[in-house]
Amino acid sequence: MKINAQHWRTIWHHFEPAQKHQNARLNVLYINQNALPHRLQTEQADNSQQIINAIRTMQVRGAPLIGAAGAYGMALACSEQSDDNSLQQRAQDLIAARPTAVNLSWAVNRVLQAVLAVPQAQRLTTAVAECQQICQQDVAINQAIAQHGLALIESLIQQKPSKPLNILTHCNAGWLATVDWGTALAPIYAAHEAGIALHIWVDETRPRNQGAALTAWELAQHGIAHTVICDNAGGHLMQHGQVDMVIVGADRVSRHGDVCNKIGTYLKALAAHAHQIPFYAAVPSPTIDWQIQQPLSEIPIEMRSPDEVRWVQGLDRNGAISEVCIMPANSPALNPAFDVTPAALVSGIITERGVFTPAELALAFKESI
Amino acid sequence: MKINAQHWRTIWHHFEPAQKHQNARLNVLYINQNALPHRLQTEQADNSQQIINAIRTMQVRGAPLIGAAGAYGMALACSEQSDDNSLQQRAQDLIAARPTAVNLSWAVNRVLQAVLAVPQAQRLTTAVAECQQICQQDVAINQAIAQHGLALIESLIQQKPSKPLNILTHCNAGWLATVDWGTALAPIYAAHEAGIALHIWVDETRPRNQGAALTAWELAQHGIAHTVICDNAGGHLMQHGQVDMVIVGADRVSRHGDVCNKIGTYLKALAAHAHQIPFYAAVPSPTIDWQIQQPLSEIPIEMRSPDEVRWVQGLDRNGAISEVCIMPANSPALNPAFDVTPAALVSGIITERGVFTPAELALAFKESI
Repeated sequence: MKINAQHWRTIWHHFEPAQKHQNARLNVLYINQNALPHRLQTEQADNSQQIINAIRTMQVRGAPLIGAAGAYGMALACSEQSDDNSLQQRAQDLIAARPTAVNLSWAVNRVLQAVLAVPQAQRLTTAVAECQQICQQDVAINQAIAQHGLALIESLIQQKPSKPLNILTHCNAGWLATVDWGTALAPIYAAHEAGIALHIWVDETRPRNQGAALTAWELAQHGIAHTVICDNAGGHLMQHGQVDMVIVGADRVSRHGDVCNKIGTYLKALAAHAHQIPFYAAVPSPTIDWQIQQPLSEIPIEMRSPDEVRWVQGLDRNGAISEVCIMPANSPALNPAFDVTPAALVSGIITERGVFTPAELALAFKESI
Repeated sequence: MKINAQHWRTIWHHFEPAQKHQNARLNVLYINQNALPHRLQTEQADNSQQIINAIRTMQVRGAPLIGAAGAYGMALACSEQSDDNSLQQRAQDLIAARPTAVNLSWAVNRVLQAVLAVPQAQRLTTAVAECQQICQQDVAINQAIAQHGLALIESLIQQKPSKPLNILTHCNAGWLATVDWGTALAPIYAAHEAGIALHIWVDETRPRNQGAALTAWELAQHGIAHTVICDNAGGHLMQHGQVDMVIVGADRVSRHGDVCNKIGTYLKALAAHAHQIPFYAAVPSPTIDWQIQQPLSEIPIEMRSPDEVRWVQGLDRNGAISEVCIMPANSPALNPAFDVTPAALVSGIITERGVFTPAELALAFKESI
């Protein structure tokens, strides 16, 4: 999508040309999302540890983008120690960087299988080709999600006498969370391009404020009307008829359509259900984990540092990126990063193949199971 | 309650002794809650405009404390222009400082009626006496709330095999929100004094973070086990059996038991209801507005400045109270300060007369209606 009218992706690579005593060197470049919305800053990684750190510190985040970054981490690993044991170990390290997102292990294992099938000398080129495919596939999937979601939005706006259609979203499942286009925001971009009048309620999404920082910034760059709200406000807005639809992304979806997404999603789903507001999760099918039967016990919920609750990052009055502590120094805090919205609260899952109710999901992807 | 083992109230007054050409001068002192938890700072007001500003900027906040402050504002007004017209105008100005809390107009009008009934020369002393009564009455009410809530907590802990009892609270309805003791936290203080093992989940309560800043600080000063969580986390914790009870305060309760409280309360009530967790509001009976029949249309919801969403206050790395901006400079934000939890989600209202279901409320206070 666009930044200042220029087309960008969230992650890409180039090779530094070969020099006298050195082969061509793989560099992976990505937008450092911890600096947004205040600064547009790209980072360059030339080793797999840097990718692990980027995933762990959420310089890259969002399930599909974490997958792409993990794949690139494996490509960098091939440029370090390309024997089977080292690569298997590195794959484990990469997967451990964020335990909840199923895309990460999916993408890392895909590259791992591809490179283990070829001789060591071909592993780096094989890995890079696989990364490019993963990225291309992500973009194609998201464009398909955009079109299926657009049809949903078109049908909702036809039922609504007054414009605009008010859509609430939580966290960031925009193009910054993917290679391009996004998942939850992809239908919104498609609807905007189709000339549909939209207004987006952007949950700020504590503790890391990805909604306020990233979703608002993305939407502003595209000129889509939006308003940032505290996570607390959604129930009140729904109660007063100011939300027509909820679309979120997901880090993992169970075979029965339970949605594991950023902490706080569940509260919005409960409120949407109470007010008969359609609640959708938009996900690429690799996000569906066909193994999960009992999501509440089987999906590991990442507990992140209490410091994310304690310290809030932003731009200070002097224009510097800075942090403030919002609570007493000695009080403890707990920071579960995700929650699970039971399928009963989910109107549908928007995928690259179409929109399915939780009950239809397994049948629609029966060859994947 | 106590700060560093010293007994404090949130608001009090003294008279500067009379001097040659001047009568004794009324000063109202209060804790500036915008500096907590980082600094304990008291302010001294010698005019009613300062009280209006203190209420508007939330140096004093919490429905019962706003009432006491409004009363003191009227007392200061009597020391300025004590004719009927001026006092009636000042009463209106004070009430307009925060539109949602019914206690404010209740207390301001109580002082106004008392002073209009006496000659001008007696108005200041009458007003101050009325303020003292309002404060004493608040403390007595909260102590009664504490005892009725304690009985509830005792019955819940008997049903629970494992300690401690986990209580979730939203915003700050502690002693800082009242003259002393608090409303929602009063039963918690009483239970702690009775030796019951408690652990309190403290919602940070965006946008102003009164939970993280004030509730956590109060509980820490009293040695009560607590953990600060983002407002997003409550649904997840309830889903995993980690919340036994919710107690909140309220800015206004309708005659049918609908609870108007800090924005986000409604989302927690929906989640508590989904998981059969008892949800209580603790309120002094002046908080019940017997006029309200249709809370969603009749209770004015204060829209506060979007800057409260945009800027987060805290202590920076250098130990200075500072603010950071968490969103793009040009994105709009909306800041509704309260929401309404329908009576159907409310297990009971804890009052100074006992604990009543919403259906019992009007009967219990029938002489007030």
